[in-house]
Amino acid sequence: MTKLDQIRLYLDQKGAELAIFSDPVTINYLTGFFCDPHERQLFLFVYHDLAPVLFVPALEVARASQAISFPVFGYVDSENPWEKIKAVLPNTAAKTIYAEFDHLNVNKFHGLQTIFSGQFNNLTPYVQGMRLVKSADEINKMMIAGQFADKAVQVGFDNISLDATETDVIAQIEFEMKKQGIHKMSFDTMVLTGNNAANPHGIPGTNNIENNALLLFDLGVETLGYTSDMTRTVAVGQPDQFKIDIYNLCLEAQLAAIDFIKPGVTAAQVDAAARQVIEKAGYGQYFNHRLGHGIGMDVHEFPSIMAGNDLVLEEGMCFSVEPGIYIPGKVGVRIEDCGHVTKNGFEVFTHTPKELLYFEG
Amino acid sequence: MTKLDQIRLYLDQKGAELAIFSDPVTINYLTGFFCDPHERQLFLFVYHDLAPVLFVPALEVARASQAISFPVFGYVDSENPWEKIKAVLPNTAAKTIYAEFDHLNVNKFHGLQTIFSGQFNNLTPYVQGMRLVKSADEINKMMIAGQFADKAVQVGFDNISLDATETDVIAQIEFEMKKQGIHKMSFDTMVLTGNNAANPHGIPGTNNIENNALLLFDLGVETLGYTSDMTRTVAVGQPDQFKIDIYNLCLEAQLAAIDFIKPGVTAAQVDAAARQVIEKAGYGQYFNHRLGHGIGMDVHEFPSIMAGNDLVLEEGMCFSVEPGIYIPGKVGVRIEDCGHVTKNGFEVFTHTPKELLYFEG
Repeated sequence: MTKLDQIRLYLDQKGAELAIFSDPVTINYLTGFFCDPHERQLFLFVYHDLAPVLFVPALEVARASQAISFPVFGYVDSENPWEKIKAVLPNTAAKTIYAEFDHLNVNKFHGLQTIFSGQFNNLTPYVQGMRLVKSADEINKMMIAGQFADKAVQVGFDNISLDATETDVIAQIEFEMKKQGIHKMSFDTMVLTGNNAANPHGIPGTNNIENNALLLFDLGVETLGYTSDMTRTVAVGQPDQFKIDIYNLCLEAQLAAIDFIKPGVTAAQVDAAARQVIEKAGYGQYFNHRLGHGIGMDVHEFPSIMAGNDLVLEEGMCFSVEPGIYIPGKVGVRIEDCGHVTKNGFEVFTHTPKELLYFEG
Repeated sequence: MTKLDQIRLYLDQKGAELAIFSDPVTINYLTGFFCDPHERQLFLFVYHDLAPVLFVPALEVARASQAISFPVFGYVDSENPWEKIKAVLPNTAAKTIYAEFDHLNVNKFHGLQTIFSGQFNNLTPYVQGMRLVKSADEINKMMIAGQFADKAVQVGFDNISLDATETDVIAQIEFEMKKQGIHKMSFDTMVLTGNNAANPHGIPGTNNIENNALLLFDLGVETLGYTSDMTRTVAVGQPDQFKIDIYNLCLEAQLAAIDFIKPGVTAAQVDAAARQVIEKAGYGQYFNHRLGHGIGMDVHEFPSIMAGNDLVLEEGMCFSVEPGIYIPGKVGVRIEDCGHVTKNGFEVFTHTPKELLYFEG
């Protein structure tokens, strides 16, 4: 059954006639065609009983028509897209419609409501569910993305120098990745030194790498449509014992969670497995974010690994395990791997060592 | 009058009590505080008669509290953000509310509707209008962003080689910009050679720079919260006369539009000033996008320079002028500068020469 067939089946189960997709990543997931419409309109209309229709900016019609086998329509900037959609669709009489509420903005929603008088329902949970469990092919692509993340962080390690700034090191990492054919990092690479790492959302700057301090790398790449994401914290020079202790506590928490994961446990229990290690040591207040996030075509997707999420884990689910301890003005540590739930455990996509690594400044 | 005072004045004019902002860029524009909440919740609540409230992910509370002077509240991942918002706001009884419909997704909208029973109206047009006319300070920042774009394209020129791939050249450009302290390009840098440039949304790859062909650079940087965007097309080796003719036609169109711009003309007239040059020469069908887009804190913002947009230009409006001619399998050219409408004309932010430049392969 194709993914589009799955959507049609869902529509039939729900007694609905039409699904409307507006998230470019979901459209890529379903059709293999990706386009970023910027502020223009992009929609995939999947009928329960008619051929789908893809509606794209005029600029994208040629490329889309090559990529997919069902009808593609475009509009130029001076046309009203809602009128054009109404004119090209084979049927606008659907009584029950599902749309991606997490992606659809209110203006687009109102635009669609000028075309369809049916009842709109939220398709986001179903799409999240579809994307949640990865196929062997998807996991293979995520392993490749993970290998590139390992290479990227190694470039970072190779460029540690007290003469270099955070930004210098980032430039080297991204340069080497681009040279290796990576078009895009998963997100802006983070290299944070000393107290800057003690801020969980610190911003890299032109400050030099500090000696006798910890240095944090958080990075990932996009390749083959899938993303990676990893964090390593290393020592530059000889950090004091407190910093080393906090590092080892964070690592103990990360390993405890990874060891705990298997089909049948809940997301909340995984979060707790790491959190209780840090709480027991008295640093719970400094681990102020969820343990992890789902990952796949998007670097942040379903599921959230956090307290309150009773989702039962299944084989094929992919997410990050990234405890962090941030003590302002003192020390910041985060250690992150993404991986997939296996038949009886969790296999990570990134393999850079995790015992504290020491570098000369 | 501060920007927040402007919002309050607008609310009073509309008889409304509350404006709700959800676009991180608008919140930065209004408060000077930027945060990307990813899939978490970020809202700025501006009351007509009470102090504003900023609601952020818990991770961002410390940084936000330092940056702004009014109350900041956070929530942790395991809390229900809508219940938390309801609990911390001084008043949820607003009858008439304005929200950014172009940014607010339907799920967030429904979340807000669990807190507020008032009538929601669209604030996006007013915000676009506020951001449309730039202050002298904003224009100064955009000039600086433009200077970096000029530097970036020069790095590209310096790295033209038949041994280099499109991706190699991009890596060099972004590396040098990062080294100069630029955290972020405005968008993924485009370097497109030969037939790849003939696709208006071509994707750079690991194909080598072609000889006797045109080579297109489209790039920009973010600096000081503002963006730049420019395109140059240059000759590598000795392209045939047809390619050179198409280049010169595109340049003639771009200069005609720039020459035409002044306060009082409409966006549609500016588009037409360029388009008619290309149409007269018989290539109108190959210029299949609008002439330009607004630019500022976002690389694409209001106004759209296109047929049908009767917006009358005013001093301080900033946008791109970027005609393109894309003849599949033959040639692709685009030339783009952004600039601001002056008292009696248009001053561009980028100054890289536009007569066709020739490079050895």
